[in-house]
Amino acid sequence: MSTEPTKELVTFPNPRIGREYTISIDTDEFTALCPVTGQPDFATINLDYIPDKLCVELKSLKLYFWSYRNEGAFHEDVTNRICDDITDALSPLYIKVTGDFNIRGGVHTVVTVEKDFRNK
Amino acid sequence: MSTEPTKELVTFPNPRIGREYTISIDTDEFTALCPVTGQPDFATINLDYIPDKLCVELKSLKLYFWSYRNEGAFHEDVTNRICDDITDALSPLYIKVTGDFNIRGGVHTVVTVEKDFRNK
Amino acid sequence: MSTEPTKELVTFPNPRIGREYTISIDTDEFTALCPVTGQPDFATINLDYIPDKLCVELKSLKLYFWSYRNEGAFHEDVTNRICDDITDALSPLYIKVTGDFNIRGGVHTVVTVEKDFRNK
Amino acid sequence: MSTEPTKELVTFPNPRIGREYTISIDTDEFTALCPVTGQPDFATINLDYIPDKLCVELKSLKLYFWSYRNEGAFHEDVTNRICDDITDALSPLYIKVTGDFNIRGGVHTVVTVEKDFRNK
Amino acid sequence: MSTEPTKELVTFPNPRIGREYTISIDTDEFTALCPVTGQPDFATINLDYIPDKLCVELKSLKLYFWSYRNEGAFHEDVTNRICDDITDALSPLYIKVTGDFNIRGGVHTVVTVEKDFRNK
Amino acid sequence: MSTEPTKELVTFPNPRIGREYTISIDTDEFTALCPVTGQPDFATINLDYIPDKLCVELKSLKLYFWSYRNEGAFHEDVTNRICDDITDALSPLYIKVTGDFNIRGGVHTVVTVEKDFRNK
Amino acid sequence: MSTEPTKELVTFPNPRIGREYTISIDTDEFTALCPVTGQPDFATINLDYIPDKLCVELKSLKLYFWSYRNEGAFHEDVTNRICDDITDALSPLYIKVTGDFNIRGGVHTVVTVEKDFRNK
Amino acid sequence: MSTEPTKELVTFPNPRIGREYTISIDTDEFTALCPVTGQPDFATINLDYIPDKLCVELKSLKLYFWSYRNEGAFHEDVTNRICDDITDALSPLYIKVTGDFNIRGGVHTVVTVEKDFRNK
Amino acid sequence: MSTEPTKELVTFPNPRIGREYTISIDTDEFTALCPVTGQPDFATINLDYIPDKLCVELKSLKLYFWSYRNEGAFHEDVTNRICDDITDALSPLYIKVTGDFNIRGGVHTVVTVEKDFRNK
Amino acid sequence: MSTEPTKELVTFPNPRIGREYTISIDTDEFTALCPVTGQPDFATINLDYIPDKLCVELKSLKLYFWSYRNEGAFHEDVTNRICDDITDALSPLYIKVTGDFNIRGGVHTVVTVEKDFRNK
Repeated sequence: MSTEPTKELVTFPNPRIGREYTISIDTDEFTALCPVTGQPDFATINLDYIPDKLCVELKSLKLYFWSYRNEGAFHEDVTNRICDDITDALSPLYIKVTGDFNIRGGVHTVVTVEKDFRNK
Repeated sequence: MSTEPTKELVTFPNPRIGREYTISIDTDEFTALCPVTGQPDFATINLDYIPDKLCVELKSLKLYFWSYRNEGAFHEDVTNRICDDITDALSPLYIKVTGDFNIRGGVHTVVTVEKDFRNK
Repeated sequence: MSTEPTKELVTFPNPRIGREYTISIDTDEFTALCPVTGQPDFATINLDYIPDKLCVELKSLKLYFWSYRNEGAFHEDVTNRICDDITDALSPLYIKVTGDFNIRGGVHTVVTVEKDFRNK
Repeated sequence: MSTEPTKELVTFPNPRIGREYTISIDTDEFTALCPVTGQPDFATINLDYIPDKLCVELKSLKLYFWSYRNEGAFHEDVTNRICDDITDALSPLYIKVTGDFNIRGGVHTVVTVEKDFRNK
Repeated sequence: MSTEPTKELVTFPNPRIGREYTISIDTDEFTALCPVTGQPDFATINLDYIPDKLCVELKSLKLYFWSYRNEGAFHEDVTNRICDDITDALSPLYIKVTGDFNIRGGVHTVVTVEKDFRNK
Repeated sequence: MSTEPTKELVTFPNPRIGREYTISIDTDEFTALCPVTGQPDFATINLDYIPDKLCVELKSLKLYFWSYRNEGAFHEDVTNRICDDITDALSPLYIKVTGDFNIRGGVHTVVTVEKDFRNK
Repeated sequence: MSTEPTKELVTFPNPRIGREYTISIDTDEFTALCPVTGQPDFATINLDYIPDKLCVELKSLKLYFWSYRNEGAFHEDVTNRICDDITDALSPLYIKVTGDFNIRGGVHTVVTVEKDFRNK
Repeated sequence: MSTEPTKELVTFPNPRIGREYTISIDTDEFTALCPVTGQPDFATINLDYIPDKLCVELKSLKLYFWSYRNEGAFHEDVTNRICDDITDALSPLYIKVTGDFNIRGGVHTVVTVEKDFRNK
Repeated sequence: MSTEPTKELVTFPNPRIGREYTISIDTDEFTALCPVTGQPDFATINLDYIPDKLCVELKSLKLYFWSYRNEGAFHEDVTNRICDDITDALSPLYIKVTGDFNIRGGVHTVVTVEKDFRNK
Repeated sequence: MSTEPTKELVTFPNPRIGREYTISIDTDEFTALCPVTGQPDFATINLDYIPDKLCVELKSLKLYFWSYRNEGAFHEDVTNRICDDITDALSPLYIKVTGDFNIRGGVHTVVTVEKDFRNK
């Protein structure tokens, strides 16, 4: 497996296809650059998903998060983008991504994106 | 962008129009004056909203909060006013504003205003 | 305004009549006397309410809590009584009062009274 | 009132018959004996109930908990028994009893019994 | 009873058959081997279940958890397997198993499997 | 023993005269009146002492704290007075009294008085 | 080894005689009876010691703590007694025993006994 | 007493002249302006002092902190200035002032100034 | 480098020989077997040391901790042994090892071994 | 002032030369690359110093921390390097730098470097 940062997410087959269960992954090691000032931003990213046929491989996910390290990213946009990329790779039954960004100017921001692909 | 306190809120286009997702912003740096005694009050303000076409720019929001620094403001009134001002500026699908005011006379007050503009 | 303990609650007009929003007030400075032993009891009181036409003035509420200082009060009874008195004064749309009483004999007691006057 | 441990629970009339409100009582001073090894077990007991006509007197409840001190009691069984005894004494509208037992062999156990006697 | 690690779960009759109540068991002493690197993994396992006719004996459950000590186990798979094994042994009315695995590479993973066998 | 508030402290003989050991007692149930406004003040009192020939009886100490309930007391003065009264009653080898007073006007005050009567 | 409560402490040879190191043991499962009221008291006991030739066996210590379960014990006295008993059994280089007793009448008591047998 | 912000500190005579004891005062309601950007800064201020002949009156201290609200103040400078002003007003035996400033640019700053005027 | 558990510790040259500074390493992933019952024990190990000429390589230290996984180890003995092994490998100026072992039978044990090889 | 990452630290004159006081600065936004794997490492850096003639400017310090973002850095080495660089720039009377690095392989590392240039 690659050890370079990459936007490509590696998957593996869900070991319990047909059962709805939840996988929650979080990291406090997300950093990107502010598109306005170019200075580093830091965030904790939380991912919850109910897999359908595929799960995301953890080291691959780590490389994916790493790939933002030298990119500019707005809070609202990047949280949506992470959600879309993981959705594209996994086609999960349900997904929620939360980006909890460090305080800037006394203001703390959390962006939460949730999509449910089940017939509810 | 201005660096003076102002009641005008700057917006930017929602990067994911059509998807319902939540933006949560909080600051523990809100201060106004007590309209009765003229002495400073302090609060933590929490804002949750689901954007429609517009998001609020963070630095602008900071200047907006700053604009209360030398104004008199009752707890119940100012929390409603913040909710109204942000609603006017963003026309969000949903908004909740919470003002958590520091203890006065052994009493701690929290005011919560919530408005849902979706067909529910 | 009086600075003596009193059971009379001072009100002011709700600044946003017609909108359902919540005012939460808590104090850890409630003390009464045990009706059995005459010894002091201590509690934290939490009040949540949705105002209709009236809000309760905070200093008045403080004087109201003070008025229990030299009265005997059973846990279950006094929590209901506070709820009734505030209801009588404000005619709120919704009210919840919680009395969280200090440990006595290794036992910790919390009494919660909730009334909803809306058509639900 | 007795100051000896006893399974008999003393009650007093509910001061607000006709209103559904909640009384929550907890103690971290529950101890019984393991029926297998005879060694002491320790637990925190939480009781929530909505009274109908009767409330349980706190000192009496303390003596009731004390009565388990030299009895053997399985976790699952004793939590159900406490719930049944209090139900028999009070005929409450609703009751929940939780027994949170200290770690044994690296394993922590919590048993929760809930009964709702209202027409829901 | 055996004091060797074993996948066989010992049960005992539910002392309150016919009542739906919850038994919650957790341990922070679960360890298995990473199937990829062969290195030890560590997790906290939480089990909630509503028993039907059988309960799981706690020491037996401890031996069951111990049985993973020298086995390879993927996070997603092992949490499902624990849920299946306990379901097979107890035929509970409801079961939830959560595996909260220690941070690896800055990433923290929690897997939650829930099954409800009641007519809901 | 009296069950009325009193400034008289009851003592009992130190069970280990000749050994220097520490007795720490704290209560969060101290209340007095503000000498300026007449309104209630609340504090947590901590007492550490090394007994010489006498220890203070706990129920007596509770009645002593109760005796301040309807007296005016400045923060700095009352903490010193408690220290002096206990010193007069016990003649301890060492004593420290801390009064931690509830927030007033956004300001939190702690007064600490310490006296060492040993030859150090 | 006995599984009955006993005041006799079992020891084993210090595996590193000649090196000063610290063994800290605590339990929140200590209970005795109040000598005045006969009602149960609960405490957390902390033991720190530097062994000389002997260490205390943990299960034996547990049985020792258990032996107080049906005995009357004043806070100050029992903490000293535990210190003396362990000192008699181990002849340690240093010992500290802390008894942290549950709140009674709003008052929380901690007794700390420390003895250093080294030439300091 | 004035209710306007002022740099003048009101004092009262130490009620226990001759005894060294400590008065600790903290507020999380300190705000000033950044001298570079003009934007508001927020801090928690802690003051510890051992009084000699004078103590500082609490409401006066609150007005003193208020006086910085519309002044520019560098972190390092303002903490020293507060220490000097209180020293000038009280001539204490010992003083320590800590300014704990809110995060700016991901960086959190605490400045601590301590002066001991006793012959040590 | 090996990826098998091993008692051999790999070192690297201290990058600042001649300066006394502290390296603190902790893991909550230590497990061994109880020499009496053969059942797994779990601990958190903390290591503080001041290096002289050598530092311990982190992955090697992880493999070293892993090497205890299938060995019997008494609390007091294993903590001393870890201290001795690291001392032998590094010849540090100062070392402290703490083993904080999970609760067994309601009793929690912490063993602390400290050695200072500097001329103090 | 530059807004690019740089190893050059900007200083300003100490506003209270001659007084020993402490400036503490911490950031949880430090990231560098692992020199072995090239993958990102994350740390919290704490800096305490007593200034002599110079203080470090906060934005400059932020740019300095940023300058490590794309450099390889061993835990032990980089903490010493930060200490040396700040010492070179400020010639402080005292300095302590702590690097608290995120868990890798279940192991958590903290490096602390302290230098005192005063005649002690």
